[in-house]
Amino acid sequence: MDLKALYKISYGLYIITSKKGEQINGQIANTVFQISSDPATVAISINKQNLTNEFIRESKVFGVSVLAQEAPLSIVGQFGFKSGKDVDKFQGVSYKQGISGVPVITEHTLACLEAEVINEVDAGTHHIFIGRVTNAEVFLEGTPMTYAYYQQIKRGSVPPTAPTFVPKQAEGTEKMDNYVCNICGYVYDPAQGDPENGVAPGTPFDKLPDDWTCPVCGAGKDEFAKE
Amino acid sequence: MDLKALYKISYGLYIITSKKGEQINGQIANTVFQISSDPATVAISINKQNLTNEFIRESKVFGVSVLAQEAPLSIVGQFGFKSGKDVDKFQGVSYKQGISGVPVITEHTLACLEAEVINEVDAGTHHIFIGRVTNAEVFLEGTPMTYAYYQQIKRGSVPPTAPTFVPKQAEGTEKMDNYVCNICGYVYDPAQGDPENGVAPGTPFDKLPDDWTCPVCGAGKDEFAKE
Repeated sequence: MDLKALYKISYGLYIITSKKGEQINGQIANTVFQISSDPATVAISINKQNLTNEFIRESKVFGVSVLAQEAPLSIVGQFGFKSGKDVDKFQGVSYKQGISGVPVITEHTLACLEAEVINEVDAGTHHIFIGRVTNAEVFLEGTPMTYAYYQQIKRGSVPPTAPTFVPKQAEGTEKMDNYVCNICGYVYDPAQGDPENGVAPGTPFDKLPDDWTCPVCGAGKDEFAKE
Repeated sequence: MDLKALYKISYGLYIITSKKGEQINGQIANTVFQISSDPATVAISINKQNLTNEFIRESKVFGVSVLAQEAPLSIVGQFGFKSGKDVDKFQGVSYKQGISGVPVITEHTLACLEAEVINEVDAGTHHIFIGRVTNAEVFLEGTPMTYAYYQQIKRGSVPPTAPTFVPKQAEGTEKMDNYVCNICGYVYDPAQGDPENGVAPGTPFDKLPDDWTCPVCGAGKDEFAKE
């Protein structure tokens, strides 16, 4: 069985939001799909360990913000590699309160949906929430961020709670100059640099400024190890 | 509520297959996602009206063939716009029998999965089937066909049973030279031609050969009307 076949499934990249009383939270997810068009119904899959899961189960409402292809890695890191149990993920992020009370992101976002949960399915590590769409807005035209683009072009990484996470295997590699973030798995490749943060392609890891941080999760240079 | 927001959700394009006794069937779907990685579990959404739905409910197994970006419109038409109730969809198509007995497509396909249904969820017009992956194979490396690529680059159309189907609105249009297929909704645009079938860009509809047929569903020229 070659589970790499699963890598051929295509996804977008979204910020799923919810609320619990006055609290709000959000997280990155790639698993959003439309179930039917009349009435408009969507399904999402959320890890049971995540705070957003708890909020959705309690409030029965969720928001979906569709990231634009141009969204920076930092917003994925903010919502994908930090927990709302520890930090306010919305700090410094533009958002508004939707009609259902859930927040929706208004920067780097093409469109948003809000939905009311009509069914919740236990799928092992995750819950599938099926939601009737109660609000939908298009913010701007453009190309949605896809999961493939995030991984291949932006070279983004995936947290262990994602359905698509695969633990890193030890393997012989000749790429001795790549450095991997111990926190989130992001790989710094000198050939690519980190142009979003002013680091030109061709910059070796030890020439990065001391205050450079992981573009995904914000970890410092000392959290990186040779791949 | 602007339901165009739903168009920003990203999908791949797949052929979902199943069996019932000695019979086999398959259909196009865009709604496949991975639910968890250990054990590998996927979810699919299938219209209740479709024969494949009946087969999956009966046999509790399904296959997923991941179409390559280069797959021709004709294979989408064969599996997406015809019913296994009327035709043998596998005629002329390369496939093999998977370990669970379901067929998997072996042409224009990057990878295949087979899964055993562990849960079935009623979602209105569709069932969501949750399946434990029992076999997975990669056939070739390459870019998966995405739904966006199919619609924008290949200008493919969508059957009324798809979750993303939107009935065509009458609207004033200046593009008087486009012709639309009454059967499947494919739009012939003379500026694009139909290069897959030897029709050069710039060929007006009335200059198409008499035996030209809709590249998606195979309908004859007389099924086309000015858009």
